[in-house]
Amino acid sequence: MEFDEKKLTRRKLIIGAGTFAAGAALLSAGAQNLISKAEAKETALPWPYEKLDPNEVAEAAYNEWYKLYCGAAVISSIFTPLKKKFGEPYASFPVDSFIWMHGGVAGWGTMCGTEIGATLAANMIAGQGVFKDGEKIANEVIQWYCDTELPTYAPKNPKISAKLPMSKSGSPLCHVSVGKWMKVADKGFWSPERKDRCARLTANIAAHTVKLLNDWKDGKFKSDLKIPAMTYNITAQHDCTDCHGGKVPEINTKGNPAK
Amino acid sequence: MEFDEKKLTRRKLIIGAGTFAAGAALLSAGAQNLISKAEAKETALPWPYEKLDPNEVAEAAYNEWYKLYCGAAVISSIFTPLKKKFGEPYASFPVDSFIWMHGGVAGWGTMCGTEIGATLAANMIAGQGVFKDGEKIANEVIQWYCDTELPTYAPKNPKISAKLPMSKSGSPLCHVSVGKWMKVADKGFWSPERKDRCARLTANIAAHTVKLLNDWKDGKFKSDLKIPAMTYNITAQHDCTDCHGGKVPEINTKGNPAK
Repeated sequence: MEFDEKKLTRRKLIIGAGTFAAGAALLSAGAQNLISKAEAKETALPWPYEKLDPNEVAEAAYNEWYKLYCGAAVISSIFTPLKKKFGEPYASFPVDSFIWMHGGVAGWGTMCGTEIGATLAANMIAGQGVFKDGEKIANEVIQWYCDTELPTYAPKNPKISAKLPMSKSGSPLCHVSVGKWMKVADKGFWSPERKDRCARLTANIAAHTVKLLNDWKDGKFKSDLKIPAMTYNITAQHDCTDCHGGKVPEINTKGNPAK
Repeated sequence: MEFDEKKLTRRKLIIGAGTFAAGAALLSAGAQNLISKAEAKETALPWPYEKLDPNEVAEAAYNEWYKLYCGAAVISSIFTPLKKKFGEPYASFPVDSFIWMHGGVAGWGTMCGTEIGATLAANMIAGQGVFKDGEKIANEVIQWYCDTELPTYAPKNPKISAKLPMSKSGSPLCHVSVGKWMKVADKGFWSPERKDRCARLTANIAAHTVKLLNDWKDGKFKSDLKIPAMTYNITAQHDCTDCHGGKVPEINTKGNPAK
């Protein structure tokens, strides 16, 4: 690969409220001098991490879904407590700017936003690049998303009181995952039940990501899961025969009334 | 929808080198007073924009691909000149932290990273949320990616001197897009030609995104293209019958030698 992670740092002024106060005290040394010091400071990837409580992250992610949708809720639920612990570099990160991950990127039904948000967070925290821990953690989260009956998360204050059914996507794609759940639940896309299913699934993915990050922080994270492109010699989803074997269900022409 | 974009701003100290110097001059008013002013300043979405030269952005994106891969190269090629023009909020954005978009998100072959990077940039600049201009621009870019014979971009200093064939993906997915091109070109995934095809396609998508952003800045951007979920009552890719109609090609078992 052409990429050398170690060369990648970001040139950045790290000036939160606290360091700004310290900077103000330094001004006796001359403003020009202080600016030079600040400009020279860089925040290398990966970003600092302390172990988080998966249950707290899950509950935050569930509630954030109703403001930011899936991917941004995963990011917010992980980065907000880290911002409280560390300040920068989390403080200046636009944590509420990832609504576009909803619906498999702007409603196109490709990768579920929860996986994209988890991938972003894991790469910033555990290092980015092919074969790096951040990508390995993302790879494990995506595989878990495909293989697991979801959602299992029970919110403290659920928006829907009824028990929701679970389903296994077998695919990283939003529209496959949502479509299979809609079939099992016999609910439409615009139903409150489908929305709450996605909010609970968001909680599951955020918590699972944090669980793996905690293992990584403890030096216990191991992954033998191959990156798909290394298995197939082309980027791929692992669920090849879902499309390449004629097993795809007929398009549901019944439709669901748009609200 | 539950989401109100106007409530979303990010609390952020906007202190680049330039404003910091201005801040230092203000210190005669007392450091405490200055800190209060700085803390009160917020950077609302969308972020500031001035029209960029699509050709310059394309060339930067082509070259950045060889460092950051597809999605991060799109983001870097658009945000780097804006950082030079505006400083913050671009200056503190970790523009080199999106390598994970490669290969349809960590090699999983879902949405091509170029589209994800374009979606991020468009949403930050033109506003995020369903039915907002940022999402409409992203929607148009993704549709253009699906419908256009690519790559057409001719780099100033190409890594591959041979003319590369073009192909139309008909899908937003990386592995479909790459797979169709590999078939037309009769080249393997690890070949230098495939890599340069992706670098040139990255240039095309970055330039097209900037073209639409420039139109938007001039008040000329219009889009009647529906968000997929509004058409199908489920998130979707528009190329439904590619999988739901048995038209998917057999898996190529010939394989391509991994390097």
